[in-house]
Amino acid sequence: MDVIEQLKAMNAKRILLQIPDGLKPSAFRLFNMFSKDFNVIISSQGFYGACDIGNREIYDNVDCIVQFGHSEIPNIKYPKPVIFIEYRNDVIELDESIFYDLKKYNTIGLLSSIQYYDEMLYVSDILKRLGIKTVIGKTDKRMKYPGQVLGCNFSAVHSSALDVDAFLVVSTGMFHAIGAQLASDKDVYLLDLNERRIKNIKNDVDLFIRRRYLRISRALDARKFCVLMDTKIGQYRRRLAEHIYRELLSLGKDAILVTADNVNPYDIENLRCDAVVFTGCPRVSLDDEEKFSVPVLTPQEFKSLFIKRSNKYIMDEIVSVD
Amino acid sequence: MDVIEQLKAMNAKRILLQIPDGLKPSAFRLFNMFSKDFNVIISSQGFYGACDIGNREIYDNVDCIVQFGHSEIPNIKYPKPVIFIEYRNDVIELDESIFYDLKKYNTIGLLSSIQYYDEMLYVSDILKRLGIKTVIGKTDKRMKYPGQVLGCNFSAVHSSALDVDAFLVVSTGMFHAIGAQLASDKDVYLLDLNERRIKNIKNDVDLFIRRRYLRISRALDARKFCVLMDTKIGQYRRRLAEHIYRELLSLGKDAILVTADNVNPYDIENLRCDAVVFTGCPRVSLDDEEKFSVPVLTPQEFKSLFIKRSNKYIMDEIVSVD
Repeated sequence: MDVIEQLKAMNAKRILLQIPDGLKPSAFRLFNMFSKDFNVIISSQGFYGACDIGNREIYDNVDCIVQFGHSEIPNIKYPKPVIFIEYRNDVIELDESIFYDLKKYNTIGLLSSIQYYDEMLYVSDILKRLGIKTVIGKTDKRMKYPGQVLGCNFSAVHSSALDVDAFLVVSTGMFHAIGAQLASDKDVYLLDLNERRIKNIKNDVDLFIRRRYLRISRALDARKFCVLMDTKIGQYRRRLAEHIYRELLSLGKDAILVTADNVNPYDIENLRCDAVVFTGCPRVSLDDEEKFSVPVLTPQEFKSLFIKRSNKYIMDEIVSVD
Repeated sequence: MDVIEQLKAMNAKRILLQIPDGLKPSAFRLFNMFSKDFNVIISSQGFYGACDIGNREIYDNVDCIVQFGHSEIPNIKYPKPVIFIEYRNDVIELDESIFYDLKKYNTIGLLSSIQYYDEMLYVSDILKRLGIKTVIGKTDKRMKYPGQVLGCNFSAVHSSALDVDAFLVVSTGMFHAIGAQLASDKDVYLLDLNERRIKNIKNDVDLFIRRRYLRISRALDARKFCVLMDTKIGQYRRRLAEHIYRELLSLGKDAILVTADNVNPYDIENLRCDAVVFTGCPRVSLDDEEKFSVPVLTPQEFKSLFIKRSNKYIMDEIVSVD
C-alpha cells in the first residue's frame, strides 16, 4: 500500500517528514506532494535512522511521522505511528570472477545494511551458482530483516557464527565490515560496491584496534568521568549509564551522569572532564573520535579497560533500550 | 527557602540540572552537591534561558528541573516543575557624575536583564538623588519583574513610553539597548557596566537597521521560502508560522513549513531555499546572520518587507507561545 493511502487509512491530518540529508534537496517537492492531502512539517535536522524519529517536542502536534531511508527497529516502542519508507539501492550487476577467492569456503554468511539488501540477495544467487552455500543469519528483535546489520547491531553474525566458514559484508564503507569482524573469529570479507571487489579486512581491523587502544588508553589515568547518555528514543540506555556510573565510583573515580541530544565536543569541553563513557550510538565514539579532546569510550571499551581487563576488543552493540 | 529544601518539599527523587556554559566548569561540584540527596542528571547542552528547559525526551525521567541563571517566564506552561535559580551580578558602585548627561530629563525609564537587576535598582537610587524621577515599567505576562527585558520582549518599554522622557538600559552589550530603542521613539541610553559610562545609542541603531535591511532585502527576489519554527517550549509559535506560510503562498512563493531544535546553517543549506522566516528566538536571525548563506528574517521583517511595506523597523517580540 502506498504511503498516502496508509496515512489516509490511519486518518492522519498532520504529519512530520524526516528526510535524510542526501534527499533534502527534494524537500520542497516532497512537502508539496504530501501537502495535497495533509498538513505537513519537514524536520530540518539530520537523524541517525529508525533509532531517532526526531525531537519529542513535535510529537504532540503530528499524527504520524514518515521517515525516509531506514527500516524500522522492531523492539523500539514508538510513541507515535511511524511509517518507514526504506531506501534500497538499485542492484549493480557484478562479474562472477570477483567472488573466486571465496570458493575455498563451503558456506558464506551474508550481511548488509538496508540500502544494499537487494544487492545482498543478488550476491547470494551468484555464490550459489559458484557452488558456495549461503546463510543469511537470524537477527534479534532490534532488526527487521535476516542478515541485516546496523553499526550497533551484529546479531546476524552471532546467530550464524557456527554455521558458516566466513562472512561477506555487502556495503561501501569499512564500518560494518569492521563490526562484523569484531563480532566473529571467522574470516570476514567486504564486497565494496564502489570498487567492485572483495577484500579480506583482517588488516584493517588490526589497525582499527591499535588506533582505538592508543586513544582509549589515555582514559586509564583519568580522574573525572562524564557518563553520557543520548536521549534519542532508540539509543537511550539510562540503566546502563547508571551502572557504569556506580562502577566508576567504586573505582574511586569522580563521575557525573550527563544527558545530551547530539552530543558535541564544545559541550563536553565545558564540563572539564578527563574522559567520557558514551552510551548512545557507538559511531559517536568510533567515527568522531578526533573531534573530541578527551577519550570517548563505548561501554564495552570502559568494561575492558577498567572492569575485566581483556585483550579481545568487543564492539558495543545495542540490543535493547530503556 | 533553599533549593534542596524546595526539592525535598516536592518529594523529588530524580532531577535534571541545567547549567549555563559559563558555570559548566562547576558541573562536577554541583552534581556531587545535589547527589547527596537526589538522583541527578546534568544536561550537557547549552540553553537559551527559561524559554528552553531542555529536551522533552528527558522530562518523563525526572521529577524536577533546576535551571541556573535565568528567571521564570510566567506565561509558559512548564510540563514539569522547574526551579529557577536566578543569577544576579554583584552591584558595581558607580560615580554619580556618569549620569550628569541625564539631568536634562525629568523622568527616566529604567530597564535591565535579570543579571543586572540589582544594579538597576542601585542606579535608580542614584538618579533620584540627582533629582531625576525613575519609572520601572510594567511588563507583560512573559516577564517576571517590572523593568525586566529579554531579547524577545520589551513590554517594559511599551508600558512606560508615555510616562518617561528617555530610557536607560543597564547592561553590558548593545543588544537590549538596540531592542529598547526600536521599541520606542524616546531617547535611549545604555549604561555599559564594562565601560562604566552611558551612551546614547541612536547611531548604533541606525547602523543596525541599515545593515539589517541590506541583508533582508536579498529576500525580495526569493522564490523558495522555509518557514522555520523552533520546538523549544518557550519559542514555539506554530500558528504564526502557519500564518506566514499561507501569506507566502498567496504571494505566489513556494514555501515549506520546517521544524528544528537549534537550527543550524548546514541543515538550512541542505534544504536549498532562497530565504528563511524564523519564528523562534529573534537572536538567531539578528545575531547569527553571518552564519547563514541565505537571509533569515524575523516575522516582523517578513511583514514589513512583503505585507505592509514600512520604513519603520520593528523588533520581533514574543508575547505568547502556542
